[in-house]
Amino acid sequence: MSSDHPTYPTSLGVSDLHTISLMGQDLSADLIGKVSFGHLAYRLITLQEPTEGQARVFEAVLVALADHGFTPTAISARMTYLSAPESIQGALASGLLGGGSRFLGVSEDTGRFLADALAGVEELPTTTEGWDELAADAVRRQRAAGRFVPGLGHHLHKQGDPRIAALYGVAHEAGQVGPHLALFEAVGRVAEEVTGKALPLNGAGACGAALADIGIPVELLRGVVLLARCAGLLGHIAEEVRGNHVAADVFADVERHAVYVDPPAPARGEA
Amino acid sequence: MSSDHPTYPTSLGVSDLHTISLMGQDLSADLIGKVSFGHLAYRLITLQEPTEGQARVFEAVLVALADHGFTPTAISARMTYLSAPESIQGALASGLLGGGSRFLGVSEDTGRFLADALAGVEELPTTTEGWDELAADAVRRQRAAGRFVPGLGHHLHKQGDPRIAALYGVAHEAGQVGPHLALFEAVGRVAEEVTGKALPLNGAGACGAALADIGIPVELLRGVVLLARCAGLLGHIAEEVRGNHVAADVFADVERHAVYVDPPAPARGEA
Amino acid sequence: MSSDHPTYPTSLGVSDLHTISLMGQDLSADLIGKVSFGHLAYRLITLQEPTEGQARVFEAVLVALADHGFTPTAISARMTYLSAPESIQGALASGLLGGGSRFLGVSEDTGRFLADALAGVEELPTTTEGWDELAADAVRRQRAAGRFVPGLGHHLHKQGDPRIAALYGVAHEAGQVGPHLALFEAVGRVAEEVTGKALPLNGAGACGAALADIGIPVELLRGVVLLARCAGLLGHIAEEVRGNHVAADVFADVERHAVYVDPPAPARGEA
Amino acid sequence: MSSDHPTYPTSLGVSDLHTISLMGQDLSADLIGKVSFGHLAYRLITLQEPTEGQARVFEAVLVALADHGFTPTAISARMTYLSAPESIQGALASGLLGGGSRFLGVSEDTGRFLADALAGVEELPTTTEGWDELAADAVRRQRAAGRFVPGLGHHLHKQGDPRIAALYGVAHEAGQVGPHLALFEAVGRVAEEVTGKALPLNGAGACGAALADIGIPVELLRGVVLLARCAGLLGHIAEEVRGNHVAADVFADVERHAVYVDPPAPARGEA
Repeated sequence: MSSDHPTYPTSLGVSDLHTISLMGQDLSADLIGKVSFGHLAYRLITLQEPTEGQARVFEAVLVALADHGFTPTAISARMTYLSAPESIQGALASGLLGGGSRFLGVSEDTGRFLADALAGVEELPTTTEGWDELAADAVRRQRAAGRFVPGLGHHLHKQGDPRIAALYGVAHEAGQVGPHLALFEAVGRVAEEVTGKALPLNGAGACGAALADIGIPVELLRGVVLLARCAGLLGHIAEEVRGNHVAADVFADVERHAVYVDPPAPARGEA
Repeated sequence: MSSDHPTYPTSLGVSDLHTISLMGQDLSADLIGKVSFGHLAYRLITLQEPTEGQARVFEAVLVALADHGFTPTAISARMTYLSAPESIQGALASGLLGGGSRFLGVSEDTGRFLADALAGVEELPTTTEGWDELAADAVRRQRAAGRFVPGLGHHLHKQGDPRIAALYGVAHEAGQVGPHLALFEAVGRVAEEVTGKALPLNGAGACGAALADIGIPVELLRGVVLLARCAGLLGHIAEEVRGNHVAADVFADVERHAVYVDPPAPARGEA
Repeated sequence: MSSDHPTYPTSLGVSDLHTISLMGQDLSADLIGKVSFGHLAYRLITLQEPTEGQARVFEAVLVALADHGFTPTAISARMTYLSAPESIQGALASGLLGGGSRFLGVSEDTGRFLADALAGVEELPTTTEGWDELAADAVRRQRAAGRFVPGLGHHLHKQGDPRIAALYGVAHEAGQVGPHLALFEAVGRVAEEVTGKALPLNGAGACGAALADIGIPVELLRGVVLLARCAGLLGHIAEEVRGNHVAADVFADVERHAVYVDPPAPARGEA
Repeated sequence: MSSDHPTYPTSLGVSDLHTISLMGQDLSADLIGKVSFGHLAYRLITLQEPTEGQARVFEAVLVALADHGFTPTAISARMTYLSAPESIQGALASGLLGGGSRFLGVSEDTGRFLADALAGVEELPTTTEGWDELAADAVRRQRAAGRFVPGLGHHLHKQGDPRIAALYGVAHEAGQVGPHLALFEAVGRVAEEVTGKALPLNGAGACGAALADIGIPVELLRGVVLLARCAGLLGHIAEEVRGNHVAADVFADVERHAVYVDPPAPARGEA
């Protein structure tokens, strides 16, 4: 090794003849059979060992976000499996690529919205009224900036997302209700009054708040959502592998209902 | 809904106004905070509830496979993050796409090799000698067919992969040493005598055997490896997010050491 | 740069302060505005300059394979765009990942089948009867090995694929009918007699034969198909960008027709 | 087909027993062998037939953007091929996923910057001074908003990007210098005076301007860049297929120079 060669630092996996270590711990002696996969994933992402409470919330959020049935990401993974069944990694990747702004971005957007609202606060509220005031202020500023308040509303669960109570329950038991979850709850209390619309809190938003409270950086919230969704997408691929043919039936149905429409006429002066 | 419309069956997530369920269980009441992410992933993939022992082995395997430092998949994920930092899903997908035959395929290949060897056996051996005979026979047939015996050897751990003892330890404690792990162990005992080469068992192979013994179908073994790797890749992306610049330094180093070589001359008669 | 550092050879793009070159040619002086994109793509893949005839066939094949409407790859790209509209690269990649064995693999499979059949032939036939004999022999051996003859049949064009005549027409005009196209044509003549089934040649198969005749290595045939499909997928994404909402409508329709089915009961002795 | 089933409109490919058509034209009779792949790609993306001049510029831009050697996208594609050589689509997708904001986004960013600057202009300038004024104004507003002016500067071509003259040359010859290219040229003239920095125009920016002038919508500029890059990535994959081992050598070099660093200590009060 020459002295002018760059070196590549990492705190993750390194190996030598007899040992594999991750984050400085011996994989075989300290991790395999000793910690859960969720625990390890938390550490890989944050480089910190989770407390028992943090690990509990982290696992709960992963469970909450793992699958929601025939989402666009699930349909995409199944379509890709149909076309290229020899390449499960392609089907999985195809599904995960839908993990962008519209469907899987809510957790990240909510976490960021709450973190921004908390960033300028010197002393956190200690009363419900105090939190409500902070929440109302954050919602008002968001709307004044022409932006959507993330974490509110669900196209199906119009009277409340059933995951909310479960997630807050786990966070309370685990002693992990921090400022993000507190502020998010307050947003739920004040949103209708401030916005004039009855939009209950949604589960994806609560997941973002909960992850922020256990120390997941905002930039990596979407990564956690993707890890959760990975399990759900494997479930969809497994159904195709076992032969239930949803992808083939959707494809046939779409092809059967395709209709040709003429391209729009060229704009004046063009072509 | 018209009667001639296809329906799309699934045993995974379905939702209505007040409930989200997965595999027939209420997500909020029965799963969030009640089961670990590993437990849920096992169920999504197999549609069966794991026993405590199965769940323990499943988590151990996910931990064993999560990260191995600067593998090609990790380099690819980091490169993609460098180019498109706004799209974490793209970086993750880019890394997972390397989950193919050469680096991440060993677990699947080993599981399949063992399952094929066991498929024709009417009664499983009950003695060490019996397993060794079965293993020697399987290795011989594999080599006679001009194929590689999967799960043997490691480019670094030439005197034995440190994960082997840990994985067998967990499987024994959990009561999950089934025919695949038993046969794989026997392959390790007989391989040198049959092949003439001292190639110790590797961890990826043992993971494939362990997953097969807890009921993961061979076709989905690679999917489990990808789930595990997902956590490791997020660890690599997180390091880039926190600013350690490995991708930028590798890119600069590669560009600096690029050398142009002329294309080969056209073959005779062509062009 | 130290002497023990590996160097990275390439015949593709290299740059210095004033010049960018590709394959030893000055990009600005020799390529931009001088050659078509298809011409350049041929050179990037083969490192050889195409003859005029080769370039003509290459462009024709790319045109023939660019789009086929609502294929699984197109549906997947649209779904991913719906979920992550900020990341066009993700939508495109998601579609291309379906470029595997089942839908886009026919060209490669056909090219390989023909190349294998030609590999053992010392002297190529010079008469129609000679080609038919070679073809019948190849088809028989393929079926004796329990394998499918690629390039035959189409789920829609049951009386003949309309692209066949067009592709052979271009190849003839361009003087590029080589042994692969000749053998493929013969397969079309003898297939019914040998197999007992009337399966006309399909366009994807002819594309594989044509590409093999103009010097695309068999291992890269699928790459050419993917390049062609890239244009079609951009067409589908462009339709979504312009607002025709196919992805949203398919998603809603699939979700509406989802039906929950109980997981299968555990196999005896398990769980 | 029931009357309440959604239909899926498209102007792209539709097929029946005897015909395949794209954009209302018969694929076999009107397109194969009649138009170039670049021509067809333009139509698929815009649904308009390009004029001869538009087609010429479109091909020139695709050629200009096809490859730049060992970029992060090329390294990623090669790494993925190394790991999963059986899945060329995965390697290609892995490379394209780097087509995001940082490396391949310049064309789109420049097109958007120019289009925004032109959007408010009632009458286009008719003199060099007029264009310079408009350009200076646009640059000033961009910088006042704390934003970077896209299309300026190149990490290597510090005295001018050699593609600029070639691209403007083709656009002039083809009669396709519209307001975007005119404004971009003016940006090049005034940038140093307005910003105090000597940053010449770069080729990726000129490509964005040229594409906007021939009618590619701003939202799809990145798609065209990805199509171009697709050819280059196939070139890199082809080099690996032919055996030049850059990916394996980079991987080995990175692994050899990995250094473990301890994770940062937990922040106060955490863990």
